[in-house]
Amino acid sequence: MATNAPNPNFRLETPEGDDRQRQVCGTCGFINYVNPKIVVGSVVTHGDKILFCRRAIEPRRGFWTLPAGFMEEGETVEEGAMREAREEACATIEIDGLLAVYSIPRISQVQLMFRARLVDSAVAPGPESLEVALLGWDEIPWSELAFPSVKWALEQHRAMLAGATGPFGNPPGTLYR
Amino acid sequence: MATNAPNPNFRLETPEGDDRQRQVCGTCGFINYVNPKIVVGSVVTHGDKILFCRRAIEPRRGFWTLPAGFMEEGETVEEGAMREAREEACATIEIDGLLAVYSIPRISQVQLMFRARLVDSAVAPGPESLEVALLGWDEIPWSELAFPSVKWALEQHRAMLAGATGPFGNPPGTLYR
Repeated sequence: MATNAPNPNFRLETPEGDDRQRQVCGTCGFINYVNPKIVVGSVVTHGDKILFCRRAIEPRRGFWTLPAGFMEEGETVEEGAMREAREEACATIEIDGLLAVYSIPRISQVQLMFRARLVDSAVAPGPESLEVALLGWDEIPWSELAFPSVKWALEQHRAMLAGATGPFGNPPGTLYR
Repeated sequence: MATNAPNPNFRLETPEGDDRQRQVCGTCGFINYVNPKIVVGSVVTHGDKILFCRRAIEPRRGFWTLPAGFMEEGETVEEGAMREAREEACATIEIDGLLAVYSIPRISQVQLMFRARLVDSAVAPGPESLEVALLGWDEIPWSELAFPSVKWALEQHRAMLAGATGPFGNPPGTLYR
């Protein structure tokens, strides 16, 4: 059965020429280099509304998020953000620019968040969403947001609309390790 | 013997709930999720000079590059860029801001390049460098640069000094797949 659980054959070992321990398979010598993963997503606007998705999957099932997910091989960061909007909200978007780069060392993620616009207003939940919604600022369900970085991106997006210069990094005091 | 060569036990398989094929170990079911890796680096200035390293390792041994390398777990993107400057050029740097985000799908990399300054002028080759140098614009060995993105970062850094607004992405026509 396929699993991503820790493999008992792996042991910690410092490969030749390296300076830190890696998981090395004791059977075949495969080195499992683990580097931070990239999450790409966007604050997608349509007029003065923002596109939200209610998560159909764990973690944080039932909570609201922005269209975002793990970047895959063979795509650019912008293409990844566009793919996530398509997969999670059946949305076709146009990228305007980089909003923020967040480092989240505790879970080994770097999140690249873009500013984007809906090309047309047709949106619908994809397989990973329970529902999608276009919400005004006063309609945002702040207490039901899935992740801290959703709030950061929303607030920094609003700051940019008010004239602040981006792109932004982690807000002060949010560097969780 | 530790190796990162393809493992004959792995086979291509689409895990449950996934939408693309992954390398799955036929012996234990370990899924080797492969996502793009992040390279962090910087254009480090000292007055009107820029910090270069001549590579002591493959690929492109003997060619000149900017201090940059794979981001590791447990660090922020800025800390990664600072670590690379320390490892490759024994340099202590201060990050000023994001210069560019490059997508290089052909080799599955996302490169985050920062603008930075040397905190003091003491630099020296680390184990991955043959030599380091602080070079003026007219001294840059353009035909001996290690990677295309080194040239992109240098030219975009110069454009920013001339008033252009960053951060930048791939220059037009450089999206190698």
